[in-house]
Order: sequence, then structure tokens, then C-alpha cells
Amino acid sequence: MSPANDEATEVLEDRSVASLLERGRTLSTPLLKQAVARLAAPMDAVAAYHFGWIDADGRPAHGDGGKAVRPALALLSAEAAGAAPEVGVPGAVAVELVHNFSLLHDDLMDGDEQRRHRDTVWKVHGPAQAILVGDALFALANEVLLELGTVEGARALRRLTVAARKLIDGQAQDISYEHRDRVTVEECLEMEGNKTGALLACAVSVGAVLGGADDTVADALEDYGHHLGLAFQAVDDLLGIWGEPATTGKQTWSDLRQRKKSLPVVAALAAGGEASEELARLLAADAEETENGDLDEAEFAHRAALIEKAGGREWTSEEARRQHATAIEALHRVDMPEQVRRNLVALADFVVVREK
Amino acid sequence: MSPANDEATEVLEDRSVASLLERGRTLSTPLLKQAVARLAAPMDAVAAYHFGWIDADGRPAHGDGGKAVRPALALLSAEAAGAAPEVGVPGAVAVELVHNFSLLHDDLMDGDEQRRHRDTVWKVHGPAQAILVGDALFALANEVLLELGTVEGARALRRLTVAARKLIDGQAQDISYEHRDRVTVEECLEMEGNKTGALLACAVSVGAVLGGADDTVADALEDYGHHLGLAFQAVDDLLGIWGEPATTGKQTWSDLRQRKKSLPVVAALAAGGEASEELARLLAADAEETENGDLDEAEFAHRAALIEKAGGREWTSEEARRQHATAIEALHRVDMPEQVRRNLVALADFVVVREK
Repeated sequence: MSPANDEATEVLEDRSVASLLERGRTLSTPLLKQAVARLAAPMDAVAAYHFGWIDADGRPAHGDGGKAVRPALALLSAEAAGAAPEVGVPGAVAVELVHNFSLLHDDLMDGDEQRRHRDTVWKVHGPAQAILVGDALFALANEVLLELGTVEGARALRRLTVAARKLIDGQAQDISYEHRDRVTVEECLEMEGNKTGALLACAVSVGAVLGGADDTVADALEDYGHHLGLAFQAVDDLLGIWGEPATTGKQTWSDLRQRKKSLPVVAALAAGGEASEELARLLAADAEETENGDLDEAEFAHRAALIEKAGGREWTSEEARRQHATAIEALHRVDMPEQVRRNLVALADFVVVREK
Repeated sequence: MSPANDEATEVLEDRSVASLLERGRTLSTPLLKQAVARLAAPMDAVAAYHFGWIDADGRPAHGDGGKAVRPALALLSAEAAGAAPEVGVPGAVAVELVHNFSLLHDDLMDGDEQRRHRDTVWKVHGPAQAILVGDALFALANEVLLELGTVEGARALRRLTVAARKLIDGQAQDISYEHRDRVTVEECLEMEGNKTGALLACAVSVGAVLGGADDTVADALEDYGHHLGLAFQAVDDLLGIWGEPATTGKQTWSDLRQRKKSLPVVAALAAGGEASEELARLLAADAEETENGDLDEAEFAHRAALIEKAGGREWTSEEARRQHATAIEALHRVDMPEQVRRNLVALADFVVVREK
């Protein structure tokens, strides 16, 4: 470790996860709002609604803007490279913009009507606005990093672009899996690595790259972020079936309604045995119908119980723990201030125990 | 002009517009195909269909991939900066990718069923693929320029990103205008500057930037491109009403079917007089209906005749000529090899006389 890094560590401290998330939100929101304010009307208002800054009638709101795990990671990423957390801010904002671009488009493609306890953008403002504002957020992510006018900004954007493409690949796989009878556990993990792992990985490298870290360090950080993303998604898949709607902001049995071939489902189908076979028969019959909308609560609950009985719930919990352990392992291969490492471990711990 | 530029001009030649377009296509298509081939299935095939390389059943095709004005401009742009045309190729490809990203999304938002004599992507492969593949082409544009790993690549991408955002702004304006009774000629020109001018402008600067031109030269070239784009769009607006479907590849009265507030329409509405007022009454009544689909050919023909009678057609032709003249004027403010200037003039001439 260089003396400069040692010096930087002096101002670092162990923080609670809540304060790490809060710091990420507080430091990145002004630049995020500045970027969104550049959009022409009505796209600026549509984006502000999506981020929870205004309600559907345009009145100021303090809506749930998401957990903000990615901004927190981007600032820690800068600190991991011995830079000030502020150095990671444009990276945090660019990653958030790409994340929200994908949410806007995915909610439309998936027909999701609720996100963060509110109606989704396509539902309130129509499909065209969901497409346009998603496109605009993607373009703004480029702007934020390129306006730095530095080699590091361009390097960071190159990584972000790779992540964005994986995100798109993952969504394409997700959609195609919904129309297939069988998806292997490996296919599901690959899809989730693309859909969630890639952008979390980028969040963990982007600050370091902006802080001047070389590709070896950035790659190692991305390794942590990739497995953290898979742990994150495994928990998301559990919440997508057994999550508390009041807490998650989604409908009950959300992923079952959408016929998502998420980890608990594919693990249950792969397990074999009585419950697994009954589940397979039911899902095959559901697939004959155009919509899952006419299934009642009890029918969804029955499917969820079969998934649990076949071991899909337990396997997915185990998988979250496995990915969490691999992420922590990757973290120990990178040379960084110890406080930063402890904060990254704390965030990883949080990701696997969260309830929304 | 520097000696290096003088040397470069020796290999330049006056070319016919057909050979300029052909050169743009020939030099850029291999890299474009390489980029598209990176997409995961089925997006690679959907993109290949969109570009006309395969038909809806996946068989090789030699479909109409568009006029390829932008790639031709990007190569001339490199030559304008004294570089070899090949230097402009990544710029040509990135601009084409952004152009086609916007076509995929716009066709879906506008409900356009036909493009380049074929069914549009959303019609053949569904809305989700149109969104996803559009997103992926946008990301690929970034990749192509960032992979150069040069300062010039990042500078070029910054300009392209600005253009992409204007493109999105323009589409947002276009959509909002369809739901308004009155749109001023100025608003329409602003929208067309965003929707068509910005990316044509970028095509004319991107090669020069990659060839090392400074911002002053790039801005002057963009000035030419912006006005060329407005001339281009004025002609497009004429073709959108009076174009020959067999030549344009679109439906008859295409823009009237979509209630586009294109230049001939807004100019006719602004003109006043009997035909203008009858047109206003008819369009207001049409707007009460959900769709224009139940109007028959004679009714569209009547609206078109009123637009012409009110002077909308003639005004738009004049506007194309005015923008053409302003473009040529801008061109003469940039120091460049004379052959390149003549070729850029020839392309501008082509744009205002084309029939598709």
C-alpha cells in the first residue's frame, strides 16, 4: 500500500450499513437530480416521478427511491483505491442512471404495474414515456462520465457499457425463459449474473477506476461485486415469492404471477420427487393460459408451498450464502484500506439478510 | 492547410453520390456486422432482420438497409480533417447504430408497421425485442467508439451522446405534437432539428474528430450537418405525404395516418385562408377519433389536397431549398480539401432531390 493510501485511510471509519447507504444517497442525489433536470419536458417530470421525487400529480414527494446499494458501493469503490469517496460520485450516478434505465424498460416489457410502492411509469405515463425516459437516462449516464473529460471517465464508461449490454442480455434471457417449460439452474444463474451481477460489479469498480486504479484491481473488485450481485438476486428471488408486499412494494407472489423462472422455481423443478412433479404439471398447465391473472391467492400459495416442499426455497437461501462467501473471499484478494474492506463486508452481510 | 492535408488530398477524387453512398456502405458494413454479431441470441437475429441481412424466417436476404447517407458523411468527415476515410469507419458505425436504435424504438412508439419495404421489428418479433435490441444497439455504439481506447474516441462519443439525447428529445416532441391541435412552424423545425438534424450533424463531425480535428472545425462541420438534416427532413415530410409507396417502402399518406404534425401540415395550418381552415376543422374532428385507420384513401387524399392548396407543400419545398443553401454556406466556412467539399455539396444536392 502506498503512503498516499495510508494517509487516506486515516479519515475512513467503520460505518453502519444504514450510514453507508445514506452517504451514497446524500452524496450522489444532487448530481443525479442535476442530470435528470437536463431532460426536456415532460421527460424530466416522468423521471422525477420514477425516482420518487414527485407524485403522479407532480407534487413534491419523498418516495422510496430504492435501496441505493449501488451508490454506496461506488463510493466505497473510490475509497478502496485510496481516493476520496466524492471521486466515486459521477460513477455512482452513472450506474444509478443505467440501473433505472433498465427498470423503466423491464417494467414495461414484463408488464409490472408496481415498483417501490407506486404504479410504474408505463402504467402512469404510458409505454412511450417509459421507453423514451429509459433511453434518456441511458444517454445521461454517458454524459455524466464523458463530461469529466478524463481518461478515467472513458475507462469507467467502457466498463459501464459492458455491464449495460450484459443487463440487456440478461433481460432477453429472462423473457425467453418465461416461455420455456424447463430452464436449468445453470441457465438461471447465468441470466442473474447478467441481469444483476454485472451492474453491481460495475458499481464496485467504477469509483476505483475514477480514482485511478488499474484494471487488475478493478477486475478483482468486480469479482466481489459479481458474486454479491448473485447473492442479492437469490434473496430477491426469495422475496419475489415469499416477500411481504407491504415491505417489498410489489404484489403478492409477484414472480409467480409473471411466471418468472427464478432460482427457487428452477431449483424446485430440478429437484425431482412428488412436490417437484406436481409443480411441473401445474406450471405446464398455467403456461397453456394467456395470463396468470385468473389464478387466486390460494392457487399461488399452493404453488409456493410446492416450491418450498421440493426444496427450492432452502436451496436458494443456501445459494445466497454461497455467493456471499465467494464475494467476501474475492474481497480479500484486493489490497485496500481495512476500514473499506470491513464496510464492503458489512454491505455484503446486509444484502443477504434484507427484507426488501 | 497543412502539408499533411495537401498530401492527403492527392488520393481524393470527385465521386458520384452513388459511389459515395456505396463507399460508406462497403467500408462500414463489416464492422457493423461484427458489432451486431456480439449480441446474444435471439437479439442478433432480430437486429440482422432489422438491417435487412436476413428475412423474417431467418434466411439470408439482401434487403434495403436504408440510404446510408450517414456512413457516407462520416467518411467524408474524416477526409475533411485530412485523414483517410477509413479513420471515420468506427464513427460511421456508431452513428448508424444510434440511428437504428432510434428507428427500432420510434417504430414501436409510433405504431409504424412498415419500414424499408418490410414489416417493422415490433410487428414481427414483438415489442419486447424492439425495446431490447434498440437498447443493445445504443450500447454497441458506445462500445465501438470506446474500444478505440483513444482520447478522440471518447470525444467522438461525447458528441454522439449529445446527439442521441437530442434525438430522444425530438421524438418526445413529435409524440406530444400528435396530441395537440396546433403546433407552430418554429416548434416543428425545433423538433426536426432534434430528430434529424442532430444525428446528421454528428455524422459530419464524427470522422473529423476521430481524425484529430479540433472542436472549432467539428462545430462548423456540425453546422453544415444540422442544416442538411433539416433539408433532409423537409424532403422526408413531403415524401411522408406525397411519396410513392413502392419507392419509399411506407404506406400511402403515411404521416397523415399517424397524425404527424409535419412541416407541410403546420405550414398549411399557419397559412390561413379557406383551405387552411377546412383542413383545421377536419384534423380537429379526426383527433376526436381514437384511430385514423377508418379513413379511406379518398379522405386522406382530400386532406393532402387541402394541405397543398393552403401552400404547405410549396412552403416545405422552399424550406428544403433554404436549409440546403444554409448548409452549403456553412461548408464554405471550413478549411478542407476541395474535393471533399465538392463531394459534401453533391451529397447535399442529392438529399433534396431524392425520392425515397
